[in-house]
Amino acid sequence: MLLSGGIDSTTTLALAQREGFEAYALTFRYGQRHALEIGGSALTAAIDVPKDRTPSEMGQDIPATYVPARNTIFLAFALAWSETLAAHDIFIGVNALDYSGYPDCRPEYVSAFQHLADLATKAGVEGRQQLRIHTPLIALSKKEIVALGTSLGVDYGLTTSCYDPSPSGEACGRCDACLLRLKGFAEARLVDPIRYRTEAATR
Amino acid sequence: MLLSGGIDSTTTLALAQREGFEAYALTFRYGQRHALEIGGSALTAAIDVPKDRTPSEMGQDIPATYVPARNTIFLAFALAWSETLAAHDIFIGVNALDYSGYPDCRPEYVSAFQHLADLATKAGVEGRQQLRIHTPLIALSKKEIVALGTSLGVDYGLTTSCYDPSPSGEACGRCDACLLRLKGFAEARLVDPIRYRTEAATR
Repeated sequence: MLLSGGIDSTTTLALAQREGFEAYALTFRYGQRHALEIGGSALTAAIDVPKDRTPSEMGQDIPATYVPARNTIFLAFALAWSETLAAHDIFIGVNALDYSGYPDCRPEYVSAFQHLADLATKAGVEGRQQLRIHTPLIALSKKEIVALGTSLGVDYGLTTSCYDPSPSGEACGRCDACLLRLKGFAEARLVDPIRYRTEAATR
Repeated sequence: MLLSGGIDSTTTLALAQREGFEAYALTFRYGQRHALEIGGSALTAAIDVPKDRTPSEMGQDIPATYVPARNTIFLAFALAWSETLAAHDIFIGVNALDYSGYPDCRPEYVSAFQHLADLATKAGVEGRQQLRIHTPLIALSKKEIVALGTSLGVDYGLTTSCYDPSPSGEACGRCDACLLRLKGFAEARLVDPIRYRTEAATR
């Protein structure tokens, strides 16, 4: 499973464990706001992270935090590792509702990758069990995800979502990821246990 | 363009340049027979490279040199880099005829990746020019590839194909890649200019 350490992937991990899967987690360090390795994105390059946008503004276009082909690269490595492990299931916490406009979080994108995986691997060609890509959160709102994870016992105090954290790890409270997260907790009538460096968490 | 430095990708580069493309080459170091980074393959792990197989033996199953999801990972990075460069064309020298049984060299695999690329990127979603994956060698035999490249002025003495070269860089002459290469040159009635450590080159 692809695990970023944010709310969505952590909740997906809890769901997979609840379903009885033995989990192997894959996390990528790709220079997020630190070492510049992939260009063309506010998540990695010297482009400002958008702040204080409303949910409707987030949905209108693809934001500067879009990383070119990120989920394609992540899923490609997950596919390779799954085949090496002889695993038959990949879990990814993509979400089409509160997806901030990323093209590679949409159901049609996931279907296209599933089709590719069916053709790309030795197991697929040899007619053995195919690999299945699971996206259990794809139709859930952030509110529903937070409520679900809380019911599964997830400690969201261990998760991190902010695109632009302070050096000590405090969330900014103003980037798209923080705003979606805070909105999710507020709508679920739950308290977000992480620390913010602004007043945003109390809104 | 994906450039391994072998016959197929080098010929593809020559073709793209002939067509007037400005080429950006992407090469991967993924621990081929040296540092172990991807498991599950004779190209990377402590598994013997098959030797002395006939072409019909090569085509019958997926060989030990298959690297899990390799072309999917390569194409995913090419997709990301293309979007960063604002390039609209990816060239890959895959070949479905003398393909040694790799699932991710087949036309249906390439079509599936093309469909994925159409859905995965910002340019695709925003309706701007789509990225096109070019596979000019997909229907050519090794003989035809070598003849084509020679007509384009490719110096095959600068290319390398062997899955199991000696420390000084001499080709083994017995792995699938060497045997397909030698067969291509022989059928095209051309001399392979690289050095081999066995008598194979003279067969």
